[in-house]
Amino acid sequence: MSNLPSTHKVVRLHPPGRDIRVEHIPSPSIEHPDDVIVKASLCGSDLHTYRGHDMPPGPFVMGHEFVGEVVALGSSYGLKETGNRRSELYSTLKVGDKVVSPFTTSCGECHFCRIGFTSRCVHSLLFGHTRLPGGQAQYVRVPHGGGTLFKIPPDHTTEEVDADRWLRLADESLILLADILPTGCFAALQALQHANLLPILRSRPYPWSSGLFSDDPSTDLLATTHSRLPLAYEDNVLTFAVVGLGPVGLCALVALIHLLEQRNVEYRIAAIDLNRGRQLKAAKIIEKIGLKSGVAEAGSIEEGTALVKQWTSHVGCNAVLEVVGHNSAVRLAYELIRPFGVISSVGVHQNVQVPLNGEELYDKNVSLAFGRCPVRAMFPIALDVLLHRQDIFAGVGQDVSLVEQVVGMDDATAKQAYVQFDTGASGKILFDPWL
Amino acid sequence: MSNLPSTHKVVRLHPPGRDIRVEHIPSPSIEHPDDVIVKASLCGSDLHTYRGHDMPPGPFVMGHEFVGEVVALGSSYGLKETGNRRSELYSTLKVGDKVVSPFTTSCGECHFCRIGFTSRCVHSLLFGHTRLPGGQAQYVRVPHGGGTLFKIPPDHTTEEVDADRWLRLADESLILLADILPTGCFAALQALQHANLLPILRSRPYPWSSGLFSDDPSTDLLATTHSRLPLAYEDNVLTFAVVGLGPVGLCALVALIHLLEQRNVEYRIAAIDLNRGRQLKAAKIIEKIGLKSGVAEAGSIEEGTALVKQWTSHVGCNAVLEVVGHNSAVRLAYELIRPFGVISSVGVHQNVQVPLNGEELYDKNVSLAFGRCPVRAMFPIALDVLLHRQDIFAGVGQDVSLVEQVVGMDDATAKQAYVQFDTGASGKILFDPWL
Repeated sequence: MSNLPSTHKVVRLHPPGRDIRVEHIPSPSIEHPDDVIVKASLCGSDLHTYRGHDMPPGPFVMGHEFVGEVVALGSSYGLKETGNRRSELYSTLKVGDKVVSPFTTSCGECHFCRIGFTSRCVHSLLFGHTRLPGGQAQYVRVPHGGGTLFKIPPDHTTEEVDADRWLRLADESLILLADILPTGCFAALQALQHANLLPILRSRPYPWSSGLFSDDPSTDLLATTHSRLPLAYEDNVLTFAVVGLGPVGLCALVALIHLLEQRNVEYRIAAIDLNRGRQLKAAKIIEKIGLKSGVAEAGSIEEGTALVKQWTSHVGCNAVLEVVGHNSAVRLAYELIRPFGVISSVGVHQNVQVPLNGEELYDKNVSLAFGRCPVRAMFPIALDVLLHRQDIFAGVGQDVSLVEQVVGMDDATAKQAYVQFDTGASGKILFDPWL
Repeated sequence: MSNLPSTHKVVRLHPPGRDIRVEHIPSPSIEHPDDVIVKASLCGSDLHTYRGHDMPPGPFVMGHEFVGEVVALGSSYGLKETGNRRSELYSTLKVGDKVVSPFTTSCGECHFCRIGFTSRCVHSLLFGHTRLPGGQAQYVRVPHGGGTLFKIPPDHTTEEVDADRWLRLADESLILLADILPTGCFAALQALQHANLLPILRSRPYPWSSGLFSDDPSTDLLATTHSRLPLAYEDNVLTFAVVGLGPVGLCALVALIHLLEQRNVEYRIAAIDLNRGRQLKAAKIIEKIGLKSGVAEAGSIEEGTALVKQWTSHVGCNAVLEVVGHNSAVRLAYELIRPFGVISSVGVHQNVQVPLNGEELYDKNVSLAFGRCPVRAMFPIALDVLLHRQDIFAGVGQDVSLVEQVVGMDDATAKQAYVQFDTGASGKILFDPWL
């Protein structure tokens, strides 16, 4: 604690939005025994709050993404053992450890955390809002640090994992684990793990595909009464659309491809955006990945819709990943899916009624899944994607990189970084709080 | 074919709705090689069409539920073997066989049929509408009979199954397999098989709960990086609400209890309806079943809501089965679920926008599943429920029976059966077309 300066530099947003100021304010301190103070090495820009959606009354430190190093720990840390009562980091986390934080805190110990729905932890707070100062700062206080943080490399890395792989992960890549890569994985998993896609992933008809019921004919009345034809070629191919190719949409695209290639299932993906530059970036990423068991193409709404029709003989997609957070994207997703299709929506929606009516949902047997990514629970899968696809994510400003530039924190105002990002003049921008 | 009389008695609905007439019209005949003619022994009343929702221009034979006996087969039947090309019934179905028909036809051979989504068969037709005369008739033509019909007893009954059990299934029970019991099962399965309930059913945290990923720490990077606390008591209990206790809602309640008791999982169910008589019937059914691993209580919206709060310390239900088809029920379901909760909606909805906005769906991580039951695929599970819970379903007019009375077809008009059913003066009414 004693090493922290009395003040530190932060980016604050002042009401009513779009008013960004780089300021010096008192440094954070341990307020609760479970707190951790992280010295941030990089932090991400955040358009949602910049645009003043749900703007709080007073100024606040922005930023929902950061990576850094532990510089102070509350009195809860240093337990000899956690005894299944506290998260393991309360015994293992040390000053000097590298950590990434999810964009929401999670205690790791409540019902929602235990079963993996960490974004709805009963103690959850969103970084970069009035109730919790954000990561666009030199120092960040992390409540429930033992449940929230992810240590890099993790304590349980097996011998099989090349230690070099961890070292090669630059902060510019690690920071993707705070939000956008796990959120992309979550978008993909909400579709892939849905009961309506399992018949194809497991080559077993609904409702037996979930594995909740036995289908061994010798032991089970249910199976003996269920006669059926064998599955055909088209019953083993999955068709997707990814709607929205901003940073999260591109992560969803990469995660979806990675998870499908891992399972060696045949697939087709239409990656859709209004913006030509985003389409081109998606196309370059697809090319760089080098697909083995499927095809993916990026294009406009019209091009994507035509592809889906052509690929599926007008049947439609098994699932659409909606990564925009706008009613027009939900509506497009509805048009693109087939009967019993799944809409996985991770876009942050506003207070607007969903543009679907009950009759059309019934008539197409539509399933929808909305919401915030449980980043802490999704970390291992996101990390797996990151470790295996470093060539996609590494290298600021390269053709396929998700990060367009890293600038000093002063450039938030001096170079109008937020204006550039907001207007589309730049892709995702990171701040180095020490530059 | 030659045994069919030239005309037969039917119930027809005349536009614009609520105009019921018992009439004699030409008997159906084989129009396509895949057709089957069934001599109906019982058929069900159908309020949806009676009330004139989506009323077609001309008069039509009503009825979406029927059970009966095969009296004529098209030329497709009698195949020596189906050779994985056609549904098995094309080789085994014979004149004289007892059959139940789902309320929609399904070919059994298209993509949707093969993977189990039979309600969205590309050839699907709804019985009792303009395009396909219904089951309130002495004779019914069944298109794609080999894919659509369910033979009782099935061809593959194992020795273990007591043949008497089949014989004891009265037509008044079998007809429940045409729609309401499978639809109840589907409502339950859309919840139980959803990825968001699997962490509790499998005692394994999300996202590992789906079984799509290994979590053997010795082999998998993913698992080694995912530390967590053991699950606690409350992580292994499921809480449900069933909203709507009409005939389908009661079937959903029984199916849900049956499936949960089979898995020996601890559960709590709030069964909710506005109508006191329906609440009482649900309570009697719950009492008669005799729950072993859970509790269920029937009551009003206020009573059900209070129960859920008390059971879950205000956290909410894991899933709500919505069996009403009205926006007020969808809204209630939203209020009742917990974060990451599932709304399984099998109610037939009208052309009205869903009463939910994107922000509240995001903020609660809501999943929804809408639509028509794939009855043909759900048959085995529904049949299992029927065979094990005959005491609940048997006995017309008894306290717990879903069928309140069986009347002659002429009583559709003579005793104003539809008026009774529509006004709530009677529960579900069946017609015997030969009385």
